Amino acid sequence: MSGVIIDGQAVAASLREQTRAVVAQMRSDGRDVHLSAVMVGDPASGTIYARSQEARCREVGIAYTLHALPEAATEDEIVATIGRLNTDPRVTGILLNLPLPPHIDTPAVHYHIDPYKDVEGVNPANIGLLFYDAPIIAPCTALAVMEILRRIHCTPRGMNAVVVGLGAIAGRPISLFLQHELATVTACHKETRNLAEHTRLADLLIVAAGEPRLIGAEHVKPGAVVIDVGINRIDDGRGNQTIVGDVRFEEVKEIASAITPVPGGVGPVTVATLLRSAADAARNQLRPRRLTT
Amino acid sequence: MSGVIIDGQAVAASLREQTRAVVAQMRSDGRDVHLSAVMVGDPASGTIYARSQEARCREVGIAYTLHALPEAATEDEIVATIGRLNTDPRVTGILLNLPLPPHIDTPAVHYHIDPYKDVEGVNPANIGLLFYDAPIIAPCTALAVMEILRRIHCTPRGMNAVVVGLGAIAGRPISLFLQHELATVTACHKETRNLAEHTRLADLLIVAAGEPRLIGAEHVKPGAVVIDVGINRIDDGRGNQTIVGDVRFEEVKEIASAITPVPGGVGPVTVATLLRSAADAARNQLRPRRLTT
Repeated sequence: MSGVIIDGQAVAASLREQTRAVVAQMRSDGRDVHLSAVMVGDPASGTIYARSQEARCREVGIAYTLHALPEAATEDEIVATIGRLNTDPRVTGILLNLPLPPHIDTPAVHYHIDPYKDVEGVNPANIGLLFYDAPIIAPCTALAVMEILRRIHCTPRGMNAVVVGLGAIAGRPISLFLQHELATVTACHKETRNLAEHTRLADLLIVAAGEPRLIGAEHVKPGAVVIDVGINRIDDGRGNQTIVGDVRFEEVKEIASAITPVPGGVGPVTVATLLRSAADAARNQLRPRRLTT
Repeated sequence: MSGVIIDGQAVAASLREQTRAVVAQMRSDGRDVHLSAVMVGDPASGTIYARSQEARCREVGIAYTLHALPEAATEDEIVATIGRLNTDPRVTGILLNLPLPPHIDTPAVHYHIDPYKDVEGVNPANIGLLFYDAPIIAPCTALAVMEILRRIHCTPRGMNAVVVGLGAIAGRPISLFLQHELATVTACHKETRNLAEHTRLADLLIVAAGEPRLIGAEHVKPGAVVIDVGINRIDDGRGNQTIVGDVRFEEVKEIASAITPVPGGVGPVTVATLLRSAADAARNQLRPRRLTT
């Protein structure tokens, strides 16, 4: 019997609808939601990414501006740009498009984003508040996974949850969320001996390893909920690029109770979550701050 | 065959010796190491704790001052006190003695401690930098556990590590450290179903649950390294207070390859680690800052 295939596009559409309503309400109250992205260096892919960000923002009524700095920009210059955006009252959210050039200390730059404008939740202070289970804004991939679990009425409390992949963007913040929800959380990665021994204990399996088709039926306990965060571009052998997850969907869907596909699973929900965080951030800035400056 | 009993007092003495040398060197360079503790409310136990802090500081040559605020102090008043200590060039380290009264948002107050003076590593920004594996100062109980592992030549990489207890002071930061060291880390807690099933897989078992004598031989894999972070005051049944750990030491030492006793294990190392962090913090303040303000 095949499991429920979670429709990430539908979750994303519903989130966008909510966000569009919040943004419209704020505009009618005289407050625009305005996201500013900072990009350092100008690789072609960065520009394409920024254009796609802009289109997604426009779709829900969020204004978007791009601040492009040259590849050779110093840390002080990047921090100065962020400082201007922090104090610009028209800017309600700040994105720092990654990766930064190798000469830049990324967490040190993230530290300068006003925690209330840090829509990706990457400022170390925001990560620390998530650690303390008192977040202002959390990383959007982790928020997307938690939103999906809510939508399928999956309550992590008491579950054995296994997170494969230790990345700062997905695996580690997801582990923190699941710990706060009182799942028993195991964090696995490349150095894990006998991965299947751990993953087969999982009632809830989150895969964010960035390894195409790593997880197969042999790794999954029948009836588990499987969330595939991986988005890997591979060659299909006939010269075409195709996108696959970290999970072998066709075989795992036969034994999982619910599973996200790739594409069309976590990816679109993450994008929609970022927009929601942008709206939430703008709204929060109208309220008294917990972190005074 | 009984395992190695780790002598926390010896580790602590060696750390204190190193710290004393650093502090003396700094003083001869004209820079005192000076820890300021902020205490809110005046429970008798808080005062006793502060006196003991002072004695421990004096032992390694660290100056200590206590700033006591009344129980009814507002968050703004506490933050203002911290602000004065942040900018006082004579103060090189700041401690905020917990717990704060219930009307205070503790992480929001921690956020105001200069990350370079935050000797306990509790500012959310310092927690976030630890999360990013780029710490300035980390929480001292976690540092103590990692120091003990180093001293017994235990390399967590690839090990199955199980951390019992999710506290912000011990369990969660220890889990982050062990993840960075590439152990496969499972975080267990009160909602974990069948605790022994998880702990029996552990090559490295860290117990920070705050539950007297929770872990017995039935929870431990023969040959495991067992680190007991618990410090529980209990009545011995004859009206005497005694201190016990979270581990049933007498039975677990028979099967562990190495184990910390309570008292005399993690506790003294934690105290010594805090003093080392105070010396490190003072030294770091003489160098260029990664986090500019």
